[in-house]
Amino acid sequence: MPNPTAAMIVIGDEILSGRTRDSNMHHLAGQLTSVGIDLKEVRVIGDEHGTIIAAVQAMSKAYDSVFTSGGIGPTHDDITADCIAAAFNKSIDVREDARAILAAHYAKSKTELNEARLRMARIPQDATLIENPVSAAPGFKLENVHVMAGVPAVFEAMVATVLPTLTGGAPLLSATLRIERGEGDIAGPLGQVAKDHPTLSIGSYPFQKDGRYGAHIVIRGSDQTEIDIAVQKLEEAFP
Amino acid sequence: MPNPTAAMIVIGDEILSGRTRDSNMHHLAGQLTSVGIDLKEVRVIGDEHGTIIAAVQAMSKAYDSVFTSGGIGPTHDDITADCIAAAFNKSIDVREDARAILAAHYAKSKTELNEARLRMARIPQDATLIENPVSAAPGFKLENVHVMAGVPAVFEAMVATVLPTLTGGAPLLSATLRIERGEGDIAGPLGQVAKDHPTLSIGSYPFQKDGRYGAHIVIRGSDQTEIDIAVQKLEEAFP
Repeated sequence: MPNPTAAMIVIGDEILSGRTRDSNMHHLAGQLTSVGIDLKEVRVIGDEHGTIIAAVQAMSKAYDSVFTSGGIGPTHDDITADCIAAAFNKSIDVREDARAILAAHYAKSKTELNEARLRMARIPQDATLIENPVSAAPGFKLENVHVMAGVPAVFEAMVATVLPTLTGGAPLLSATLRIERGEGDIAGPLGQVAKDHPTLSIGSYPFQKDGRYGAHIVIRGSDQTEIDIAVQKLEEAFP
Repeated sequence: MPNPTAAMIVIGDEILSGRTRDSNMHHLAGQLTSVGIDLKEVRVIGDEHGTIIAAVQAMSKAYDSVFTSGGIGPTHDDITADCIAAAFNKSIDVREDARAILAAHYAKSKTELNEARLRMARIPQDATLIENPVSAAPGFKLENVHVMAGVPAVFEAMVATVLPTLTGGAPLLSATLRIERGEGDIAGPLGQVAKDHPTLSIGSYPFQKDGRYGAHIVIRGSDQTEIDIAVQKLEEAFP
């Protein structure tokens, strides 16, 4: 049975302008792989209603689960929650469970729960909250879409909360070979091994170090025996 | 007049599995912003024919220019060039101009230009080559799509080659204010300034340092005077 599929939507003008370097994609990719969920596509889009709604609708249909990062803070450019509600035709307003979490959090630091901060308690109807152990303001899950913060520490904490709730597939096994030959020399035998083992995913990632060419060959699959056979063939081809 | 738009397609299973952390997106984003081209969307997809072709066709239509990274090496998983040809209904074969570049390069290092390396001379009909000063194997441009390598050093060199050929818009100007208040305190006045200056793009990027909350407010636009006015308003609101 093929693994469950996933997609990610990174929301934020600051990524597209080059001001901020995203790190959430790389984090989520590794986490999903570790539990046997195949991340199939990532889209990075700007803070625009129509764009966000269209991406959420398309990817929610196409993949088993979707993860978003960014746009759930208290400022005017935080429009993700409203867009998710619109994408699924749900109403959205300040919700009592989310307000209670924020009220408790800000009471501790004697900070006013003002109108702007209350925006972070706007949760679409029928969504379930995702805990935020870092800064309280919750994420949420609606249909198969997990809506999480853009700040990496918060994003990563939310992923840790969500991960155990997901149904993964067979964990992906892998083996890596380092071959100190140019990719052009490796390509022929490698292509043959890939052809002989269609259930394995075999990638070649070239490097250049101290003037020498080489490549890391990564063999991925769910059957350890078949991975071992492919590794052995490559070791024989490139002793 | 609005700036020209661009999109990027990052091609590679290794990014989606979390094995490799992409750096090309961040590099391209900064370079395009510097010449007044708005990067509107990035898609990260796997090494699959149908997926690559569909993404190229959709984004080539939707944006003024498209940039791809990855999948133009000599191994079996390097299928980008063939997919680009298919997306535009062009034939593809080893092309004499590209073969000559590779032949000269490998002659210098006394390396055989074998069948695998020759794959890197497969260039779609009607495409123009993009120089690769790092490792010779060229990228190419077909229609409005620039096809470049995934290895960061090569990708960046190719971007440097391509950038002067692009027609940019008004260079984006920006000012950054550091405000040492929680975003929840900043949001109200900030939202008002954003509303009063609809031609400016105003983003709030929170940080937490030594237990104190704050945000960098970035104001972007093409009119310096208007940016200055917005900055002044915010300085008065948060002295």
